[in-house]
This record gives sequence, structure tokens and C-alpha cells, in this order.
Amino acid sequence: MTTTETPVDNGVNVEALLGVRAALAGTPEIAQFKWRATSSWVNGTHSRSDVETFYGFGGEQQHHRRFSYDLDHPLQFAAQDNGVTPVEYVLVALGGCLTAGVAAVAQQRSIQLRSVRATIAADMDLHGILGADPDVRNGFSGVRVSYQVDADATAEEIRALVAQSQKRSAVYDILTNPTSVTVEVS
Amino acid sequence: MTTTETPVDNGVNVEALLGVRAALAGTPEIAQFKWRATSSWVNGTHSRSDVETFYGFGGEQQHHRRFSYDLDHPLQFAAQDNGVTPVEYVLVALGGCLTAGVAAVAQQRSIQLRSVRATIAADMDLHGILGADPDVRNGFSGVRVSYQVDADATAEEIRALVAQSQKRSAVYDILTNPTSVTVEVS
Repeated sequence: MTTTETPVDNGVNVEALLGVRAALAGTPEIAQFKWRATSSWVNGTHSRSDVETFYGFGGEQQHHRRFSYDLDHPLQFAAQDNGVTPVEYVLVALGGCLTAGVAAVAQQRSIQLRSVRATIAADMDLHGILGADPDVRNGFSGVRVSYQVDADATAEEIRALVAQSQKRSAVYDILTNPTSVTVEVS
Repeated sequence: MTTTETPVDNGVNVEALLGVRAALAGTPEIAQFKWRATSSWVNGTHSRSDVETFYGFGGEQQHHRRFSYDLDHPLQFAAQDNGVTPVEYVLVALGGCLTAGVAAVAQQRSIQLRSVRATIAADMDLHGILGADPDVRNGFSGVRVSYQVDADATAEEIRALVAQSQKRSAVYDILTNPTSVTVEVS
């Protein structure tokens, strides 16, 4: 832990986030968010997703620009590898969510971070998506995330930091608990 | 449906995929995959994820290059918007997985696609991740995917195409069913 003479700065505006939380008490509707993406087929297993707008804080919002992402399958699947696979994007999401949480919680606990790095690994049995065995699920059989954190804190404080990030992580929750998804043709 | 004089080409090598499935019968271990990503903290809620290698087909594999993705929170969260949020990456993954599936199933069913486009929308109550209400989950309260498909097929065939993609989708399964995720500090 740093002393009060050396302000901790992990680049997270915790005051703003706590301000949002305080504002929720009087206006709970500002917490209702809608996140959006579009997916456009290019060719084969190659598609492009755009993310630009979302709804929240009581109104329509947008990112400062449109973000576009290519998804494909690798050459080893007789595809063109124009981008990583959808399941790898899930791992990107999980790591980014937990890492942002580590930074936010560290700021709130006055722990100065120096570096945070995680490896994310997921097991998958292709018998599922290939329809070769009805007893094998399509998704991951398990996911492991391993953090290496260099910070002005004890090993115990670092473990507690990562545990708190996990507790509040949206993507960790999305993976570990079921979510209702409807798919329709319009 | 096209006639046999006009070969359907959606850019998917279905023969190769069916070849993989056939090969699984004799060597089921080639279907055991490990997907990987790393997450490195940059500053604040900004992190970068790299995806380069994976394990499958009985050995170490790699994409033809390293793919890097920035994740951040928007300006509206007092962050820098260097990339979309982790939860938006989940929507990117879901759309890409279902769209690739539509193309693959269309190829297998000899349906020529002209365009495939989906909008993906997810509801989320920020009371969860902000720790403002213990009864609100951190993740999505629900996700809706809506497809517009222009193809050489009837409306019924198109609905069946999307339904089959959903049935075999890894990311749809990951969202709708629980997955074990362990998070540790090494």
C-alpha cells in the first residue's frame, strides 16, 4: 500500500463510478443499458461485426467511433483466418473484463498497479459443434484464467483484488450462469 | 434452391469439415482443442488481448498472424473508449458464431446465400456490476438476435437454416448454459 503522500493512480476514475452508483438511488432507470452489435456475412465463415451505439444513462449513446471486428476460422479449418474465431473473442472479452475490474478495484483500495497480465485458456471438444457426438456440448468444457500482478501490495491483497474483480465481472457471470438468448429471422 | 447446373458457393469448404468429422471416428483425440488469449493491462479500464496460438488436431497450431484487440470503457464512464467494452465483445462473438454457422449449413444444404445480416442486442442492469443491488446479476438479463437473410430459399428454409446454426453454435451454448471458469493468481 502506498502512503497518502503518493496518490495512487491506475488511470481509473473511481469517483465518477461511485458517483454513478450514488445517482442510481434516485434514478434507477439510468442503469438500464442496451448493448448492441451487428454481424454481416462476408464469405465462408468470415463475417464482420460493427459496434457503435448503445443505450444507457437514460438515453441513446455512442462510442467516439465505429469499431469493426473480423471473425473467421483458421486455415487449419480450410478457412481464410481473416480474424480469430468467435470462441476466441469470448476469451478476449473475459480477460478484458477481469483486467478492467482489477484496475478499478485496485484504485478503490489505493493499490498502485505496475503490471497486470493474464493468460486465458479454454478446452473444447469439437465433437460438439461438428455434430459427431450428441453427448458433447458445443461450447467450452472449462476455462482457466491465471493472473500475474505486479503491484504495491501483498500477495494476499493481490489475491483479494482478483477475487473482487471476479465477483463483479459481467463476462465471468455471462460464462458461468445461463442467459436467455432468442434467435429469430425477421 | 439452385439447380445442379449452378453449383452453390458460399465460400465454405464443407467437404473439409465433413472430412474432419469422418476422421474423428478413428482418432477422437484430434478433436480436443485448447483456445487461448492473453490480457495485458494498459491503463485504467484499457487492456489489450492477443490471440495467436491454439492446440488442436493433435498438435500446437497458430493463426497466420497475431491478432490484437483493445478493450476499454466508453467516455460516458469517464474512460477513454480505446475499444469496445468486454460485454460488447461477447455480442461480437455471438453474432460471428451464428453467422458462420448460417453459411456452413447453407452450403451443406445447397442454398446459395446473397446476404446475411444480424442485429444483436443485450439488456443489462448496471446495478449488478456497480454492486448497487445484490439481487441484480452482473451479466445480461437477456439477448436477442434478429437475422435478415437474402438467399435462394423459401422463408421456411431460411428459418430452418438459422435454427440449425443456433443448434450447433459454440457461443450460443456458452451464453445459454453454465461453464466452469477458474480464476487464479500465479
